Amino acid sequence: MRGNRALPAITDAVATGAARLQIPDGAAIVLAISGGPDSTALLHGAAALTPDRGWRLTVAHLDHGLRETSAEEGAAVASTAAGLGLPAEVRRVDVAALAAEEHRSLEDAGRQARYRFLEEVAAGLGPEALIATAHTADDAAETVLLRLARGSGLRGLRGIPARRGRIVRPLLHARRAVLRAALDAAGISYSTDPSNADLAHARNRVRADLLPALERLNPAAVEALTRFGRLAADDDDLLDALAAAELMERRDPADALIDWHRPPSRALGRRVLRLAIGDPAPSAERIEALLDAAEGPRGGVSIELGGGRRASVRERRIRLE
Amino acid sequence: MRGNRALPAITDAVATGAARLQIPDGAAIVLAISGGPDSTALLHGAAALTPDRGWRLTVAHLDHGLRETSAEEGAAVASTAAGLGLPAEVRRVDVAALAAEEHRSLEDAGRQARYRFLEEVAAGLGPEALIATAHTADDAAETVLLRLARGSGLRGLRGIPARRGRIVRPLLHARRAVLRAALDAAGISYSTDPSNADLAHARNRVRADLLPALERLNPAAVEALTRFGRLAADDDDLLDALAAAELMERRDPADALIDWHRPPSRALGRRVLRLAIGDPAPSAERIEALLDAAEGPRGGVSIELGGGRRASVRERRIRLE
Repeated sequence: MRGNRALPAITDAVATGAARLQIPDGAAIVLAISGGPDSTALLHGAAALTPDRGWRLTVAHLDHGLRETSAEEGAAVASTAAGLGLPAEVRRVDVAALAAEEHRSLEDAGRQARYRFLEEVAAGLGPEALIATAHTADDAAETVLLRLARGSGLRGLRGIPARRGRIVRPLLHARRAVLRAALDAAGISYSTDPSNADLAHARNRVRADLLPALERLNPAAVEALTRFGRLAADDDDLLDALAAAELMERRDPADALIDWHRPPSRALGRRVLRLAIGDPAPSAERIEALLDAAEGPRGGVSIELGGGRRASVRERRIRLE
Repeated sequence: MRGNRALPAITDAVATGAARLQIPDGAAIVLAISGGPDSTALLHGAAALTPDRGWRLTVAHLDHGLRETSAEEGAAVASTAAGLGLPAEVRRVDVAALAAEEHRSLEDAGRQARYRFLEEVAAGLGPEALIATAHTADDAAETVLLRLARGSGLRGLRGIPARRGRIVRPLLHARRAVLRAALDAAGISYSTDPSNADLAHARNRVRADLLPALERLNPAAVEALTRFGRLAADDDDLLDALAAAELMERRDPADALIDWHRPPSRALGRRVLRLAIGDPAPSAERIEALLDAAEGPRGGVSIELGGGRRASVRERRIRLE
């Protein structure tokens, strides 16, 4: 492999991420590999570190069955894995059929199928096995922008977590362009149309349009956005914990009644009600209307919450039905 | 005035904002008028509502002295005010000299000089007098984006408040394009290069480049951003209140010592330390380093906070020097 001589930028990036995530030597790790540049970098970087770290790597590739070339891409991933001496699992799923069946977007259905597959592969490797995905700082920044554009509150702006359960993202601090340039310099080929590119029209717009505009404003905009995402996650966790404690205190355990005689701050009130109502989450407008009713004059009010649920407010007490 | 027949969109916008802000009938209001489209709309809308509301309006214009035409723009504002039967105060300030003297950007120096001038005019009208500025939803959305690009946390993303002290912003829910179209339809002229346009290069980029890209992603992106700004403000207020209470509890009143034996959440810890350290705010990196030291092994650590200040950490206690 010519690549082995020109890979230091990539192995350094994976090593830095592994250190931050405290991935232990000898860990069993499923590598989620689409075959695009980011995951190809993850694959080569992790493989290069493995003799030293004693990691037990398994390559996993889900063919979404959405393009004519997708079977070839799966075969290419399997062949790269074989060249690196790594076991690979390649599975084909009909994401379009899944999406139609479950009334989801292609993007959602693909994501869910992918993580389900990865969890299955990991389960075969034992309870401690990790799943490493190749999300980069660019992905995290794009996620923040996309959610901001779509009207999210703080919760949606958490960005992409570096760790969630057994899923780890060792390249989350790395820039996509740096990884790509290193692959090109090393002469390592990758698929130029990774399986999620055609799934995510909005994300492609963020990538092509919005992020470059933001970087003209501040060359370090991606770092700024990912940092914001991390801070937002911490703030959001704290506010959620407060809301849970507040709900415990306000809720009548014998009934679905919430005491609002001492109104909490609006910020906390929103979260207490969202937590009490649960999924599917009511619209922001309904939550605000409920808060207005609970804080307003004492007459009885009844508010539709969607999904056949309803809340009534009387004498500063909220009843969920 | 031909405008009086074609102004309903503008008077409606001002009336909606005034209702939300609960601006009382008979209020004394200083209108901050640059002569650009937004403030020209505010001026005509407020003037049209005044016979009904009994407001006592005073037009205030600060000439920043930054362009050759700025004196003419001031004269145009004074003449429009006279045409509407309103008193006007026009003052000239050398913002470039102020900026040089105070080592501030032109934008900062201009903003500060403007609000100082407006407060002075309001003070002359009594303690209850309000100051109305013409900020729109577009301004609020641009502010959120600009601060996000520059690397702000939640605090910076509060957007523009509808009310702060005596300052009110009745057009904060209105879209700039709607106001401009209504002015054009009414045949009301305005300055096309309002005094802050050349001050705010970065903001112009957001306006020309970034916001349109975001609106291609979601036509309601401006509403999404302003809504986010309002939610962020509520969350930020709550977190600040928590941090203040936490600092009270942790601080040794006889000394600048803060007890960290029971570490708070990272989100709260950041705010407690920022509050304890005060202005000038230390960099985010220093705050994180201080948190790491306070939560880490018990050896003594000393951290430079900038501005000649220093914090030392020993045995889970932080001393500010």
